[in-house]
Amino acid sequence: MTQFALSPRVRTSPFHRSTIDAGLSAVTVYNHMMLPAYFGDFEAEYDRLINGVALWDVAAQRQVQLAGPDADACAQYLTARDLTKMKEGQGKYVAMCDHGGRLLNDPVLMKLSDDRYWFSLADNDMLLWCKAVAAERGFDVEVTEPDVSPLAVQGPKAERVIVDLFGESARSLKYFWFTETELDGIPLVLCRSGWSKQGGFELFLQDGSRGDELWARIMAAGGPYGIGPGAPNPVERVESGLLSYGSDTEPDSNPFEAGMARFVDVDCEPDYIGKAALQRMLAEGGPARLLVGVYMDSGVPGAVSGVESWPLLQRTAIWVDTDVVGSLSAVAYSPRLERTIGVGQIERRIVELGVPVRVETPIGTTSATVTDLPFIR
Amino acid sequence: MTQFALSPRVRTSPFHRSTIDAGLSAVTVYNHMMLPAYFGDFEAEYDRLINGVALWDVAAQRQVQLAGPDADACAQYLTARDLTKMKEGQGKYVAMCDHGGRLLNDPVLMKLSDDRYWFSLADNDMLLWCKAVAAERGFDVEVTEPDVSPLAVQGPKAERVIVDLFGESARSLKYFWFTETELDGIPLVLCRSGWSKQGGFELFLQDGSRGDELWARIMAAGGPYGIGPGAPNPVERVESGLLSYGSDTEPDSNPFEAGMARFVDVDCEPDYIGKAALQRMLAEGGPARLLVGVYMDSGVPGAVSGVESWPLLQRTAIWVDTDVVGSLSAVAYSPRLERTIGVGQIERRIVELGVPVRVETPIGTTSATVTDLPFIR
Repeated sequence: MTQFALSPRVRTSPFHRSTIDAGLSAVTVYNHMMLPAYFGDFEAEYDRLINGVALWDVAAQRQVQLAGPDADACAQYLTARDLTKMKEGQGKYVAMCDHGGRLLNDPVLMKLSDDRYWFSLADNDMLLWCKAVAAERGFDVEVTEPDVSPLAVQGPKAERVIVDLFGESARSLKYFWFTETELDGIPLVLCRSGWSKQGGFELFLQDGSRGDELWARIMAAGGPYGIGPGAPNPVERVESGLLSYGSDTEPDSNPFEAGMARFVDVDCEPDYIGKAALQRMLAEGGPARLLVGVYMDSGVPGAVSGVESWPLLQRTAIWVDTDVVGSLSAVAYSPRLERTIGVGQIERRIVELGVPVRVETPIGTTSATVTDLPFIR
Repeated sequence: MTQFALSPRVRTSPFHRSTIDAGLSAVTVYNHMMLPAYFGDFEAEYDRLINGVALWDVAAQRQVQLAGPDADACAQYLTARDLTKMKEGQGKYVAMCDHGGRLLNDPVLMKLSDDRYWFSLADNDMLLWCKAVAAERGFDVEVTEPDVSPLAVQGPKAERVIVDLFGESARSLKYFWFTETELDGIPLVLCRSGWSKQGGFELFLQDGSRGDELWARIMAAGGPYGIGPGAPNPVERVESGLLSYGSDTEPDSNPFEAGMARFVDVDCEPDYIGKAALQRMLAEGGPARLLVGVYMDSGVPGAVSGVESWPLLQRTAIWVDTDVVGSLSAVAYSPRLERTIGVGQIERRIVELGVPVRVETPIGTTSATVTDLPFIR
C-alpha cells in the first residue's frame, strides 16, 4: 500500500490523537479531513461491528449549517424530498441534486429548529453549493461549517453503551431522531444513526477541543461490552447495500440510479433544485441504470480480508457478451454469506432480463449473478 | 507514516500506472484524486527541480470549464480580477471569493476563446460553486469538469525538453500563456506555468486514455537532460513563497491575507462576487493578518529532509510573549539557504512592529524572525 503524506490542507479530527493511540494504520481523505479506515485487524473490526460494539471517528462527515429566518425555505429548496412535515429533532436521509437532477450528495438532514438545520454530509464540498445558492437566491440565512464532529458507536451492543452513558431515555430515540444533550459538560447531539445496518448512534461533538476526552469516556463505558476502534466497514456496507457517494455514483448519476428513489418526493409541492429534471426523467421512463448487487461465481482471492478487499482502485467493467453494461464499484468477501459479493451500476434492461454477467475484478474476470440490494437485511 | 486506503471515491489519474512504475511511495488527496507527493528520494527530487528537470503528475489540479455565450460574463462574475483585456491564449492567476470576500480558490484562469474558459484549480470543489452560481444567476453557460489532466515539466532544463518535443516556437510562450497543440496525435494544451519558481510548462492532456503514453513520451525526450519523477515540492514552494490553498489559508481568509493583493482588482468596473465585501475590507484599513515567512533561529531536527518536513500536521501557533499572533502552516529545511524556514499568517501589527516571534514546531518552540515572501526570488 502507498503511504499517506501529511499536510495541514488535509485536516485532522478532534479524535485524531485517540485514533493514533488506538492503532490507526490506514486512512482515506473525506471532506478535506483524514478519515480512519483501518486499525490493523480486519477480523476483529468486522466482528465488533456485527456482534459487539465499535467506536468510529467519523468527524470527516462534516455538517453544513443553515441558520436564520429562511433556513426552512432554503433547506427545502436544496433537498429533493418533501420537508413540510419534518419535526424538530428529526433527521431524514435526503438527496441533494443539481439543476439537471444529478446527485450531488446523500446527507442526513437534521432539523434542530425552524431556523437551524444541518446537512450531515458525504464527501464533497456542499458548503460551496449551499453558500452559492443561498446568496444568489437571496435567502436570509447564514451558511457555515460549524464546529461539529460526529463519533459513531455502532453494533448490536451500542445501545447498552449509550444507555449506560445517557440513561434509559436514549432507548426511546427513533431511527434518525436526535436530542441535544451533554456528557460531563461536553456539548453534543445524540442521534440514532450511523453508516452501518448493525444499529447504533452518532454523537455529534460540538466542541472540537474535547474530542479525546469524549473518545476516552465512551471507550471506558464500552469496556464491559468489548468496545474497540473501527471505521466505516467496506464489507458490511456492501452486505447491507449502503450507498458510498462518489464510489457507487458517477458525476452524472441521478438519485434513481443510486438506489434513492424511495427518498425522493419528485412532485412535492415546494420547489426544489432539480425538480423539473427529475420529473422529466420519470416521464421518460425512469433510470437507465440501477444500483444492484452481484454474487461472484468464483471467489476473488484478493477479497478474502477487508484490507485486501479495498484495492478496487477504480470502478471496473461489467459485461454481457462483448458489451459493457455497467461498472463495479466495490467487491468484498462476506464472512456471513461465505461468498464474494459486489456492488455496481448496471443497465436496467440487463437487470430486468435477469441474465448472468461477467465482472472484471482486479485479479481477472469472473461470471456473476445480479441481485437486489441489500444482500443481508 | 500512515498507509493510504484505496477506493474508487478517490480517483486515479491518467498517469497513475506510470507513477507507480516510477516508484511512487506517498500520495495525498486533492480534488478527490490521488496526487503523488513523493517518490522515495528527497534529495534527488529537490535537485532535479532546482538544477535539472522533473515530471509531475498534477492531474488532481482539475479544470472547471465554462462554455457558452455567457462564458465571458460568468468568468468575470466569479473572479476578483478585471478580465476585460484578457486575450485568447492567456492565463491569469486569480482569486475566487465568496459573497463575504473570503477566498475560495486561487486558480489560473485560462481563456481558450470568448465562449470557453478553464479555471485550473486548487483543492476544493469549485465545480459546485460555479454550477450553483451559473444556474441561479441564469448565465447561458455549461459548467463541467472536462477530461483534462495536467502534467508539469518543471526545472531550469524544462524548456529544452519542451523545445525538443514541440519545436522552437514553444520558447516564445510567455508566462501563463498557452497554445492548443498535440503530440503524436495526443491532444493537449501547452502552457508556460506550474507550481514552482524554477520555470517550466504544464501539458494539459485532453484525452484521459493516453496518459501513460504522454508520460513515456516526455520521459524519453527528457532522458538527455536527466529528467525524473517528482511532485509539487514542499521545500521549494516555501522558499519561493507559493501559496498552498487550504494549508496557508483558513476558511475565513481573504485574498489580502493570502498574499494575493496584487492579483485583485477590487474596484474593477464589472461586478464580481465579493466586490462589496473586499471594498469594505480595504476601506476599514486592510487585512488584519499577512502571509509571511519566518526564519527559525534554531534548526528543527524534524525538518532536515523533505520527507521529514511534511509532518506539520496542523497549523501550529506563533507567539509574542504569551499572545498567539498567528499560525505556521509549513516548515522546511532549505538546502539553498541552509536554514530552517516556514510560512504562516501573522497579525499585521506584529509584522509591522518587526518584533521577533516564537514558533511552536512539532519538536518544540523556537525563536524566529519574520520576513517577506519569497525567501528566494
